[in-house]
Amino acid sequence: MIITLKPHTEEEQKDQLMRWLSGRGLEVDVSEEDDHELLRLIGDTSVVDVSMVEMLNMVQNVRKISAPYKKANRLFHPKDTVVDVHGTKIGGGYFSVIAGPCSVESEEQIIGIAKRVKAAGATMLRGGAFKPRTSPYAFQGMKADGIELLVKAKKATGLPIVTEIMNENHLPLFEEVDVIQVGARNMQNFELLKALGKTRKPILLKRGLANTLKELLMSAEYIMAGGNENVILCERGIRTFEPYTRNTLDISAVPALHELTHLPVVVDPSHATGKASFVDSMASAAAACGADGIMIEVHNDPAHALSDGPQSLTPDQFDGVMEKIRRVRAAVGTEN
Amino acid sequence: MIITLKPHTEEEQKDQLMRWLSGRGLEVDVSEEDDHELLRLIGDTSVVDVSMVEMLNMVQNVRKISAPYKKANRLFHPKDTVVDVHGTKIGGGYFSVIAGPCSVESEEQIIGIAKRVKAAGATMLRGGAFKPRTSPYAFQGMKADGIELLVKAKKATGLPIVTEIMNENHLPLFEEVDVIQVGARNMQNFELLKALGKTRKPILLKRGLANTLKELLMSAEYIMAGGNENVILCERGIRTFEPYTRNTLDISAVPALHELTHLPVVVDPSHATGKASFVDSMASAAAACGADGIMIEVHNDPAHALSDGPQSLTPDQFDGVMEKIRRVRAAVGTEN
Amino acid sequence: MIITLKPHTEEEQKDQLMRWLSGRGLEVDVSEEDDHELLRLIGDTSVVDVSMVEMLNMVQNVRKISAPYKKANRLFHPKDTVVDVHGTKIGGGYFSVIAGPCSVESEEQIIGIAKRVKAAGATMLRGGAFKPRTSPYAFQGMKADGIELLVKAKKATGLPIVTEIMNENHLPLFEEVDVIQVGARNMQNFELLKALGKTRKPILLKRGLANTLKELLMSAEYIMAGGNENVILCERGIRTFEPYTRNTLDISAVPALHELTHLPVVVDPSHATGKASFVDSMASAAAACGADGIMIEVHNDPAHALSDGPQSLTPDQFDGVMEKIRRVRAAVGTEN
Amino acid sequence: MIITLKPHTEEEQKDQLMRWLSGRGLEVDVSEEDDHELLRLIGDTSVVDVSMVEMLNMVQNVRKISAPYKKANRLFHPKDTVVDVHGTKIGGGYFSVIAGPCSVESEEQIIGIAKRVKAAGATMLRGGAFKPRTSPYAFQGMKADGIELLVKAKKATGLPIVTEIMNENHLPLFEEVDVIQVGARNMQNFELLKALGKTRKPILLKRGLANTLKELLMSAEYIMAGGNENVILCERGIRTFEPYTRNTLDISAVPALHELTHLPVVVDPSHATGKASFVDSMASAAAACGADGIMIEVHNDPAHALSDGPQSLTPDQFDGVMEKIRRVRAAVGTEN
Repeated sequence: MIITLKPHTEEEQKDQLMRWLSGRGLEVDVSEEDDHELLRLIGDTSVVDVSMVEMLNMVQNVRKISAPYKKANRLFHPKDTVVDVHGTKIGGGYFSVIAGPCSVESEEQIIGIAKRVKAAGATMLRGGAFKPRTSPYAFQGMKADGIELLVKAKKATGLPIVTEIMNENHLPLFEEVDVIQVGARNMQNFELLKALGKTRKPILLKRGLANTLKELLMSAEYIMAGGNENVILCERGIRTFEPYTRNTLDISAVPALHELTHLPVVVDPSHATGKASFVDSMASAAAACGADGIMIEVHNDPAHALSDGPQSLTPDQFDGVMEKIRRVRAAVGTEN
Repeated sequence: MIITLKPHTEEEQKDQLMRWLSGRGLEVDVSEEDDHELLRLIGDTSVVDVSMVEMLNMVQNVRKISAPYKKANRLFHPKDTVVDVHGTKIGGGYFSVIAGPCSVESEEQIIGIAKRVKAAGATMLRGGAFKPRTSPYAFQGMKADGIELLVKAKKATGLPIVTEIMNENHLPLFEEVDVIQVGARNMQNFELLKALGKTRKPILLKRGLANTLKELLMSAEYIMAGGNENVILCERGIRTFEPYTRNTLDISAVPALHELTHLPVVVDPSHATGKASFVDSMASAAAACGADGIMIEVHNDPAHALSDGPQSLTPDQFDGVMEKIRRVRAAVGTEN
Repeated sequence: MIITLKPHTEEEQKDQLMRWLSGRGLEVDVSEEDDHELLRLIGDTSVVDVSMVEMLNMVQNVRKISAPYKKANRLFHPKDTVVDVHGTKIGGGYFSVIAGPCSVESEEQIIGIAKRVKAAGATMLRGGAFKPRTSPYAFQGMKADGIELLVKAKKATGLPIVTEIMNENHLPLFEEVDVIQVGARNMQNFELLKALGKTRKPILLKRGLANTLKELLMSAEYIMAGGNENVILCERGIRTFEPYTRNTLDISAVPALHELTHLPVVVDPSHATGKASFVDSMASAAAACGADGIMIEVHNDPAHALSDGPQSLTPDQFDGVMEKIRRVRAAVGTEN
Repeated sequence: MIITLKPHTEEEQKDQLMRWLSGRGLEVDVSEEDDHELLRLIGDTSVVDVSMVEMLNMVQNVRKISAPYKKANRLFHPKDTVVDVHGTKIGGGYFSVIAGPCSVESEEQIIGIAKRVKAAGATMLRGGAFKPRTSPYAFQGMKADGIELLVKAKKATGLPIVTEIMNENHLPLFEEVDVIQVGARNMQNFELLKALGKTRKPILLKRGLANTLKELLMSAEYIMAGGNENVILCERGIRTFEPYTRNTLDISAVPALHELTHLPVVVDPSHATGKASFVDSMASAAAACGADGIMIEVHNDPAHALSDGPQSLTPDQFDGVMEKIRRVRAAVGTEN
């Protein structure tokens, strides 16, 4: 909610209103626009009786921000957020390519892939250590050992590492992880989001399979409300009636999120389509429409991957995708 | 996977096969059908080369159970599971009505509602203490205090209590809770499911907003694989393009789940529709099509409820719904 | 849009407003409520500048009816419409069971089924003559010959007949058809709807697979705007991500449509689920929640039906469903 | 279905099989691969008992083509179809930009826009004359007069014209129309598709809001089965639970359709998103991922357009989009 005061409102009156608002549990952020003062209310504004506030002499008007996210809202923070991962930037014109295998499987595998994707131009390494699998009987990841191997790959290549967390109790294991990923299935695991809000690590937050963009932003808000504003959003496909692709890449989520929020937006064409042969075209589309990065699964031997083989590129295929993305980004004029 | 052995297979041969299967990490459950022995394999059967097994002399045939859930599968357990909550039974012809407010708000409120719904015929009391809210700024529930008040209501009325868990670290607070609910947003919070699999409490598992029935069963399997077979499934509406109702009640989930699994199935018309005026007709529909129970939000003062007021019934309205459900159940001939 | 006039508005002023509204192409329906006159505007009200009208002295207030359907709107016509098909009534407490095969296949088949479903209590006979098939190579129906056979079955049993139209040019063939069905795929074939609006036959309008309830009502409005107000709405399943059933029966469409419109609402559990084994429970659910009728596929030999065999009941199964529905309807107290 | 014969099959045996297949109503297309003869069956192959055919001595194997579309299937026609619209080509590397207003409103409007979009590089002019509107009370288009004005604009600029048909009885009015559009709501109006199959005009077939890609291809097959193989497919957004955009652009439909069919694929970002501000980024994405064309709404005065103003670009904005698309197409290396 934004309360616009009339020009020349007396300080005393304003203070009275501010005290009343604080008393209702709201944080008030004061700014100026032309010769008006604007009071932006942060918190649960449903406690404010708008019609009463509007009747106050000093009040010009009250705008309800229908979007209940505040810290993630571009209305309040018009400038793009640039998330800085030890020097690797993403957002605000900085483009980042996160690549690596679905699951960490061995030291040789992860270091081998890390070197190849770095050579091709990737800026971060992804790899799953804790794997959320639909079946309790499926491979659940190498867990702590997987993280150790990622850290080795990071040391070998200098690439920051991105890996998924599934349980706040595992946080101590993530100390050397550079970006913590929240998977689609945990997008509304609010307890986990709150725990991550207390860290200062960049969080890669994936959109749930049936979540709206506003819900994605509310989940980002959970992290940001805790004090951690380093949130990267990720579109990874939504669930529709179309069976040919694993999910449906909602490509217009890119311009839509750029309109609604200042946070960087990454696209994951591997999970969105579930088909390696579609990754090249979907990554190009993402680059062309202004995404701040892409996240691609690359595996040295997709046919024998322990998870998600059918959607993984070989390192050679990844080289080709990187080439094309560079050309597309140059064409659309975003060249950081 | 079910391996049917030929009649008169020698014990020695069978043992050899059993050892080989165990060596692949599979549990084998032996049973008889006519004069054949059946080996039911539990675990990740993708390690078994079916064509090789089929070529063995002793093997009659191999049936792949395409459904990767085993313990929840009606194929393996044709008889309905009856979950017993301190004497209140659900499933296998026993019908249970779980009623109460969305959120516990005060001692007076929860005890007052508990008495009213008990008088009307409810068999369990529901009430939210930890509330998963889309917004971090919305009321998050009374937490531990809320559980304490539920326990008081249980003592006052004798009704078993059902309340939602959001974090495995809260488990110690749930000692006196009779049925632990997993909300739709946590249906695929696999870490939480695993933790609940280690308890022996009945679990009410709600279907996620965009999850298939098979995924719901896989999540039940996570709990059951841990050793806790007291799982109650709950259909509470799925997400579709239709905006008039909050979600779309997938009523055919009732016969579909009854076909696929032996677990009891409950319908929650309050969340499925988001409209109090539809609860009566949807509860009747659920009773008519064979649901094992319903879960209804009842609030003493819906207009001032701290959450989900628009979908809550008054106690008087609830009386009317109970009346009607009794008649419908008698009509369809399921009268426990 | 409803304009409420102030009490004691002068006739002359009112006439001036009425003329101005007529000049904008709007029909005005005048009624009274307490001591106010209400002007209900029918037509494209977007041409009216609401703020201007509100400023007129004689105007108390202007309510925009957000629903752009007028003739189908319960707000304007609070009383249930009862459609009368040569004495067989549907709506307003009259319940109708429409049964028969997906496709008419032979004289023996259709008359045999007609006799069986009539004996079981069906009130109308359905049968497809023109079949909308996804594939151009699939059986397209017996066409004109199929209609002839339906007419024979009608003569043999006295049951009114319901069959689908796909092309307005076929209308002359439908003279002896009692209820003309518009299939889901043609729900927004506006040219066909307009042509049907010029007839006076009852129309059974099926909801499209991905259409909202409001769009269904807008399509009903197309027919009604042409002067034909005998419209029966049919919920037959919508498209969602769930693959276990052919479609998802949106059962809450029944109370929702009853809230929005005065037209009768029928449920088709056969198409909604695509599984004969679910028809019994879904038909019971429909009867329990107040549907005005159901439409069920019955075939003498489902295994060899030329279309939709897997979802057809045998006549014996249909007997059982009818029995149950009668008991459910008695239980919920709607006994016409 | 493809039957592969063994090498050196005797002519007589083969003829016997061919006669048997013809007798079942199937067309047989014979070709060679290595030293095998292949019989491709066109028509309803469900009448063929595969296991019986496989047992014939002369038969090497039988491949069921699960896709029931034949003429649209890339398996049978590996080479891209290039549709030629009086010299303007689309498909197989030829890219086409179809631009113009949602509705034709006046001679001045349509000729003015036609000149502007041609100057910017558009290759065809679109404009609605018959408009499928959800409401019977909304502007339904200028109808025959609209087509006359399109023809004038074609004469003034040389641009081929594209406009929508809603009723086969209107076909005589479409004589000078170069590409006939079938709208999303009529994608499964099979009677209309059959009528268009008898013409030889290029058809632009839009995907229905809730139709799968295979259903889109089956609808194309309806047209092609009639003898008209000039079909252009159009992805224009599907219906999902996301409310921020009017529909959800299924961008992966582009590579998916290119895999499944040889027909050209066009993307319509205007209808897919419903927001003019997203057209630029979505058109770039479409060009980047290999679409054969785009279709964009351009209006001289979007704020006062009689339909779909919010999603229309001004001619100046369209100039910018064309610039960007040219650069993107050069970057991805498809430069016809």
